[in-house]
This record gives sequence, C-alpha cells and structure tokens, in this order.
Amino acid sequence: MPTLLRNVGEFPLIDRLVRRLRGVGPRLPLGPGDDAAILPALPAGRALFTTDVLVEGVHFRRDTVPPRALGAKALEVNLSDLAAMGGRPLAFFLGLSFPADYPLAEFDAFAAGLRASARRAGVALAGGDTTASLGPVVISVGVLGKLRSRRCIRRDGARPGDLIAVTGPLGAAATGLRLLAEGWRWGGRGVEGPGTARVTRRQARAALRAHLFPRARLDVGPVAAERGWCRAGLDLSDGLASDLVHLCERSGVGARIERGRVPVAACTRFWAERWGLDPWKLAAGGGEDFELLLALPETALERWRRRGLPHPPRVIGQVVERRQGLREVGEDGRSRPWKRGGFQHFA
Amino acid sequence: MPTLLRNVGEFPLIDRLVRRLRGVGPRLPLGPGDDAAILPALPAGRALFTTDVLVEGVHFRRDTVPPRALGAKALEVNLSDLAAMGGRPLAFFLGLSFPADYPLAEFDAFAAGLRASARRAGVALAGGDTTASLGPVVISVGVLGKLRSRRCIRRDGARPGDLIAVTGPLGAAATGLRLLAEGWRWGGRGVEGPGTARVTRRQARAALRAHLFPRARLDVGPVAAERGWCRAGLDLSDGLASDLVHLCERSGVGARIERGRVPVAACTRFWAERWGLDPWKLAAGGGEDFELLLALPETALERWRRRGLPHPPRVIGQVVERRQGLREVGEDGRSRPWKRGGFQHFA
Repeated sequence: MPTLLRNVGEFPLIDRLVRRLRGVGPRLPLGPGDDAAILPALPAGRALFTTDVLVEGVHFRRDTVPPRALGAKALEVNLSDLAAMGGRPLAFFLGLSFPADYPLAEFDAFAAGLRASARRAGVALAGGDTTASLGPVVISVGVLGKLRSRRCIRRDGARPGDLIAVTGPLGAAATGLRLLAEGWRWGGRGVEGPGTARVTRRQARAALRAHLFPRARLDVGPVAAERGWCRAGLDLSDGLASDLVHLCERSGVGARIERGRVPVAACTRFWAERWGLDPWKLAAGGGEDFELLLALPETALERWRRRGLPHPPRVIGQVVERRQGLREVGEDGRSRPWKRGGFQHFA
Repeated sequence: MPTLLRNVGEFPLIDRLVRRLRGVGPRLPLGPGDDAAILPALPAGRALFTTDVLVEGVHFRRDTVPPRALGAKALEVNLSDLAAMGGRPLAFFLGLSFPADYPLAEFDAFAAGLRASARRAGVALAGGDTTASLGPVVISVGVLGKLRSRRCIRRDGARPGDLIAVTGPLGAAATGLRLLAEGWRWGGRGVEGPGTARVTRRQARAALRAHLFPRARLDVGPVAAERGWCRAGLDLSDGLASDLVHLCERSGVGARIERGRVPVAACTRFWAERWGLDPWKLAAGGGEDFELLLALPETALERWRRRGLPHPPRVIGQVVERRQGLREVGEDGRSRPWKRGGFQHFA
C-alpha cells in the first residue's frame, strides 16, 4: 500500500512542504509558520498581488496531468499574471486542498514541480493553508510581486493607432489538451500515445509540453514595462478570442485583427490538419498559451526589436476607435465582427 | 426554476460581486479587473499577509451553514489571523469555486455576508479568481494587513514566567457545530430546532451564532500589539488543546495550564450538561472560537485591564521552561501531561 496523506497528517505535511521550499527566493521578514507572513518593504504603487485557483475536473484531470506538472503550472499561471503587468515575483502563498487518500509520492512530485518553478522565478514561499478535501484537489496560489519603476502594463491603456501584438505562437496548449483527451500522455521519458512516427511524437510532445509546463513570460513582461514599451497588455489565459475583448473593453477602444498575421504554433498546424480542424479555432479559441497580448506604439516595437530580447512581439493588428468595433480581417481581405469566445466558467 | 450560476456566466458574476463590494474599505491604487492588483505602500516589517481556505464537506456543510454566514466567516477567519498578529486589515483577495448549479440567490447572500464583514473591518476587495467547481464549494481568502508599529504578536516570543491568557470564553463554536448535527438551524428570524423552552433556544442561539458568525478580535489584537502588551500569541482556530502546543513549540517553552481557570462559554456548560459531556472537551478540544491565546508579562496584564478595553485577558496558566513540559493542573490540584488534540486535517 502506498503512503497516503492521511497516514502523514496536516502538520507534518506542512513541514514537509516548507522544508522542500526552504532557501528558494528572497529571504522574508517572517515566512511560513505563524498566523500571517510579514512582507518585505514595497513603495507606493510598486507592489502587485494576483491569485488564481486550479480545480480538479475543471482546470485539470488527475489522470492526465502529472502532479509535477500541476505543481509547476499552479505557480506559473500566477507568475504569468504578474509578468503581464510587468512585475517581478517576490513571494507566494499556497492554499491546498487534497483528499486524504491522495498518495504522498504524488504530493512530493507536486511539491517538486512547485519548487522547480519557484526556483526559476526566484520566488519564496511565504505562507498558506493546507486542508483536506472530500472531493477534488483544489490549488489556490497568490503571488506578491514588485515593479521596479512606476510603469506597469495595465489593461486600460490601449489607444487608437497602437499596434496589437503577441509574444509568441498560439494554440499549442489547446492542442495539448486535445491530445490528452485522445489518449496521449506525458511520460517520464517522453510522450506516450497512439502514434509512433517520429514527427507525430515530436509534435505531440511540443503540444503536451505547452499545456502541461507553461512558462510565464517573466523574461519579457518586466523589461517591456520598465522601458515603457507597452501601452496596455494582459496574458493570454482565456484565449485570444476572449482576452482581446477584455483589453478593448477596459481601454474603451476597438481593434482590427488580421487573421493571417496571428502566429499559430507549428504543432497546432500539424494536428489541426490531421484532425481536419481550422487551426484558428485552437489558436484564438483555446486558452492557456500564456503569451502576452500587448498594445504598443510602433516606435516602441522598433526599440524592442533592436534590443534583441527573446519573444519579440509579432504584430497581429491595430487598435482603432471604439465606435469602429472589434473586427477581424480574413485572409480573403474581408472584415467580419470579432467572434468573442474562449473559456468562460459556468458557461 | 431559480436562477443558477450557469445562467449568469463567469464575467457577469464577477461584475456582480465587484459591484457589491465597491466603496468598501480603503481606495487601492488598482483594484479588481486587471491581471493583478496594485497594493498601497508597504513599509519594511509592517505588511502582513495571511490566507485560509474553506472547503465544503470539511469546514462546513451547505445544508447547515447559511450562505450569508459562509461569506462572513470566510473573511473573519482570515481577519482573525491578522488580529492575532496585531495587524489592521487593508485589502483582501477572493478565490471562489462554486458548482455551476449553485443558486444565484445563495451566491448573493454569500456576497452580502462577505460585504457585511468587509465593511465592519474596513477591508477592500483587491482581486481574485472565480472558477466553476465540479464538486464542493471552495473559498480561499487572502488578506493584506498592516502593523502601525514594528511590534507584532508572533508565536515565538513566549518566555518562562509569562502569563498565559485567553480573550474570552471557549467552547461555544464547537457547541454550535454539535447543535447543527443535532438538527438545530439558524433561521431567518431566530433558531429552529428540537426544543421550545426559552432557555434552550437562547443557549442554542448563542452557540450557533458563535459557530456561524465568528468575529475576529480586531478590537483587541492590534491595540495589544501596538502597546507592546503581548510577548506571543495566536488565534484559537484549531482549539486550545492544539494551539497551545503550537505556541509552546514555536517559542521553545513549556506551559502549565490550570484547567479550572479556563473560561467556558455559558452555552457550552448548558449543553454539555444536557449531553452528559465534559464541557472541557468542547472548550479545549473544539476549535473555531477565534479568541486569542496570549503570553504576556504580569505588568502588561495590569496595564491592559486598567485601559478597560473589551475582552480583557483571562489568565489560564503560566509559561514554564521547556524541560518542564506542557502540563495541565486539574481541579483536584494534580498535574497531568497536556493532551494534544484539536482538529487536524487528513487525520
């Protein structure tokens, strides 16, 4: 019989988790173990906080998402929100609910994934709450970050004339999700699934990796914010179809997107062809790519490109006046109203 | 058919919640609606953050805890952690997971309870995440607070010779929980349950109120911290039997508790007698009273009493050297080892 969480108990489990994360990220005035954590000093307008919840059966299935991926992803989706605002991570809080019959080995793998992501981002565990669950695994993460300057990438700053850009190809995460539903799995040493050709496995691997091990754009969001390159932006978590609407609504503007310029991940093109699907559906309708969607003036784009940073923005359209609405220009040159889509809870 | 969350959808639901909480608490540099919130200035060593998760079936049952109580309690349990450290609340974050078939009217009652508690505490909604759940309701709350001085009530400051005190009678919340199991309910206009005598109903009401509508000790924790009255402390969430052990372990001390001096709630004495139970079991073993457990020097106790603040500390014992261990002195004058107990998840 494998050891289960009920064989360990709450307080030893918390100790175990805290030990794994000891020494990761900056030293805090007071970390886990008391009623509250004491946070480092942050000047006015420079501290950011964001929180995201992952629910088993809604955001992930326990039989398809390895616990190591889950631990990393729970943190990365929050780091992505921070990156989108231009913040650098400092500390995080964990609210964990696991069933008592959850295997300890999987909990340890979850903690290892969390640790890997925390180390990469240089973020310290500051506190949390660990509870039993009678049903699903529920992971709630909150991250505290800081802005180095007062410049911040908000959703409400886009202005007509700005270019709209994304930091990378879209659709891979949605493709990975679909592959999981088709029986593909992320194994210890590569992917496993219904297909043996080398190219098939390579394209499956790329898509599964995007879905299971997303990386927050911490390498570009903060720099872009500090240099003042962006007028507005957010991370593509719900999907372009939906997130573009958020950006435009908050900024009080319209947009014109050129469908042919939206970069689609190679694995998405590969699998969409096999599935007889329009790759656009996966690229715009699927979420969780965690690329940044940005509005920026042309001069900023040129500066960004000259700097040679990773993930240079790829222009997909332009911000227009609100009364011009949100429109998409097809590869046939015809313009149609933007189809709002993307994931929405309860819908 | 009542309206359900699935008839509303994620974004309208978030708007609804944000509108209800608009204008409550201090104005934040950037509140809900973006990828992250921008927090007010946090001076070194003065900012606190705490988080607690409530899970349906573990912390509450949907058929016995009215949604209004749930909304208030989800925030109060966090405010209690803040109060125990001596912090004053500033802003809170909400991670909500509700099933799609949850009635909108109950969600509104939940929001009303949350609002009532937030207004009382003067704490602003700063952000959050709202997701569907395929199973239980899960509510994760994080609260940011500030210390007015550098003084803070931590768990690790108790010293031999300090008095150990609590800020109020114990056991009422555990008594209320047991009454719910016996069929008592908190109704719109009073309590309902198997008992009609006036005294019975009054004692049921007191216990149910303690369990369903706890109040964080924000009226004493911050003042006690700022005046430097306390050496150490925490809130009684798991129960005295367990929380005393936390205090002693973190401080590296022992304790001697006089059982006869531990104040027991009147309703607990009343119901324990009816049930043929030792009221001590409910007072020490039951959690969620959210009184503060404090270690303080005698001079501080006198000053506190002279000030005439609410909830004056009631001495229940003394801090001793670690090697003397944790002991309880019975009403027969005999000393026994402290029986660790209280709630522990997964156990």
